[in-house]
Amino acid sequence: MPMPENAALSPTLTLAMELMRRPSVTPDDVGCQALMVERLERLGFHVERLPFGDVENFWAVRGHHGPVLAFAGHTDVVPSGPDVLWEHPPFEPCIDDDGMLCGRGAADMKGSLAAMITAVERFVTANPNHDGKIAFLITSDEEGPAIDGTRAVVEHLREAHERLDYCIVGEPSSTSELADTIKNGRRGSLGGVLHVKGVQGHVAYPHLARNPIHETTSALDALVREHWDGGNSFFPATSFQISNIRSGTGATNVIPGELEVIFNFRYSTEVTHTQLRERTEAILDAHGLDYRLDWTLNGEPFLTAKGELVEAALAGVEEVLGRRPELSTAGGTSDGRFIATLGAQVVELGPLNATIHKVNERVYAADLDTLSDIYEAILGRLFV
Amino acid sequence: MPMPENAALSPTLTLAMELMRRPSVTPDDVGCQALMVERLERLGFHVERLPFGDVENFWAVRGHHGPVLAFAGHTDVVPSGPDVLWEHPPFEPCIDDDGMLCGRGAADMKGSLAAMITAVERFVTANPNHDGKIAFLITSDEEGPAIDGTRAVVEHLREAHERLDYCIVGEPSSTSELADTIKNGRRGSLGGVLHVKGVQGHVAYPHLARNPIHETTSALDALVREHWDGGNSFFPATSFQISNIRSGTGATNVIPGELEVIFNFRYSTEVTHTQLRERTEAILDAHGLDYRLDWTLNGEPFLTAKGELVEAALAGVEEVLGRRPELSTAGGTSDGRFIATLGAQVVELGPLNATIHKVNERVYAADLDTLSDIYEAILGRLFV
Ligand SMILES: [Zn+2]
Ligand SMILES: [Zn+2]
Repeated sequence: MPMPENAALSPTLTLAMELMRRPSVTPDDVGCQALMVERLERLGFHVERLPFGDVENFWAVRGHHGPVLAFAGHTDVVPSGPDVLWEHPPFEPCIDDDGMLCGRGAADMKGSLAAMITAVERFVTANPNHDGKIAFLITSDEEGPAIDGTRAVVEHLREAHERLDYCIVGEPSSTSELADTIKNGRRGSLGGVLHVKGVQGHVAYPHLARNPIHETTSALDALVREHWDGGNSFFPATSFQISNIRSGTGATNVIPGELEVIFNFRYSTEVTHTQLRERTEAILDAHGLDYRLDWTLNGEPFLTAKGELVEAALAGVEEVLGRRPELSTAGGTSDGRFIATLGAQVVELGPLNATIHKVNERVYAADLDTLSDIYEAILGRLFV
Repeated sequence: MPMPENAALSPTLTLAMELMRRPSVTPDDVGCQALMVERLERLGFHVERLPFGDVENFWAVRGHHGPVLAFAGHTDVVPSGPDVLWEHPPFEPCIDDDGMLCGRGAADMKGSLAAMITAVERFVTANPNHDGKIAFLITSDEEGPAIDGTRAVVEHLREAHERLDYCIVGEPSSTSELADTIKNGRRGSLGGVLHVKGVQGHVAYPHLARNPIHETTSALDALVREHWDGGNSFFPATSFQISNIRSGTGATNVIPGELEVIFNFRYSTEVTHTQLRERTEAILDAHGLDYRLDWTLNGEPFLTAKGELVEAALAGVEEVLGRRPELSTAGGTSDGRFIATLGAQVVELGPLNATIHKVNERVYAADLDTLSDIYEAILGRLFV
């Protein structure tokens, strides 16, 4: 259901809406990458399609020498849920009376993708012989398992000994105003699934049973109270959260035989995941539990404390908006965690994140044009 | 499928098997009570049928003066599950090569019902003008919700100002040998369902959420460690058991908004249920929880510490078996909790409980004849 073309729309908004009309729910790309590739090839980019499993990815490069700046992002969106909950159909983008671009992906992150493309178009047109190499690292699985997406592309680049110096991830980093916040790192994420074994029995005969809930309360209390670290000037203190706890047969007269606890660390660069594992297990061991503990390292922390990219990003925003953003490492994980392992400086810079993953996702239409200007200004600071 | 009549079977075993052929799964009686009523009316009992809801009950009395001794029990049985798991079909009773009466209800408690009837038949025939009044209080809902069964009959008796001095409940009280244990009381049972409210959020933003699991670990630990009482010479210490704990959306990155904890007290006569409630709530309040707590009093504790009935039961067993039983208040609840509220002395005395509620329920056939002799001996001690 394409909307009628509107002559008043900027190139960035036109492209954003073309991308948003494609219902590219993870891992489907539905032709979004083809649209981007077509534009980039027209600019002289060399494009390498890198499908892994059912995930579409591509890596595109323009230029032959010097440092490499990649724009990174994803064409997939989270599901939209029932259309009836939306004021406007989620995959029929429109600009409402408040000047908001409405639809799934407006903020996360088809708006950013469009802004990157148009920024590069203007920059390359004005600077056909720019310094450095401009690249794009695009996936269709950032919102899903994220195994065959950026992670796989990064492994491919590593094996191909591709250089990556700077990376701007288009994730919506702004909170109240456009570009009020640039993320220059993310905390690590370490997950654990704890199974505590007891002996099932009847509540009337507790001496014949061993209640795993009773045996674990004290250890859980110790984990909840543990001071894991104090954070540092870039990261808040490491946080431990229990997301799920479950034990019991449903019957009110049965002492259960097992307890399951699922927890997650969001951790700073002051501790390692190995230390967190060891300290957790030491606490459980000290409480004499009979347990099994399965760990999942979702992402190590990364930090671009300072350097050319952060400087260029801060200055680029100031050039366009007349104010300097804050640097932050708050929030969830992003594909930046994979890209940072290549040794690249990584920042995340995108539109407001207030409506992401919700119904009626939307973003100020004018912000996307401004974002495109900011991306172009950053290119200018690094490659002119 | 009635078995071929066997001339060698005692009256007790013959009646037990007649009852066991009726698949009287709670609350169905399937004619069991009619069989008992017919036998009792023949002996001169006055029988009052007391159906409540879909539950069959009756109250039968013989005699016109003096203290009242009631035999109490239930005709309903728990479900048998798949027949293929049984060595012999559950509702086709037989006596196997080891002399075991096999089938659902053999131990809990059609064997006891048969033993009560035959004991009373012999006693009344020998003592047609016995002292006191002999009664039967029989329900078809002891294994189920137990609302329209003994509880309702007891309320009826209370309103009718019926006197009840002694009650022998036929529950299988024996553990290793017939009548090695007489139960002269039961602990109380008090249940609680605790809902702790938090604020749901994302594990990456714990400062915007309030994790109800984290808020509750310390209070649960305090409840688990609390010394509720030391018990007394009749009761073990009051026991607190958490049977179920549940919190979490299933997602590993969501801080849940609510925690549910289901727990149960089995309590002695050293505390009251009011004290347990108050002490529990004081502990929760001291930890500053935002909670709702719903209580269910399943049964208050009862105790027949001593008296004519306990003396007669101990002496009756010794007369028949040459050894004295132990008195015990261990185990779950029974309908004795309701009967005791009439001020009656209550004991539970029945066959071995090793196989109750299981497949291949069975009991030594000879034990039922002996149990009938014991019931008769107790009648003799009280009413001759
Ligand atoms: Zn995103
Ligand atoms: Zn029973």
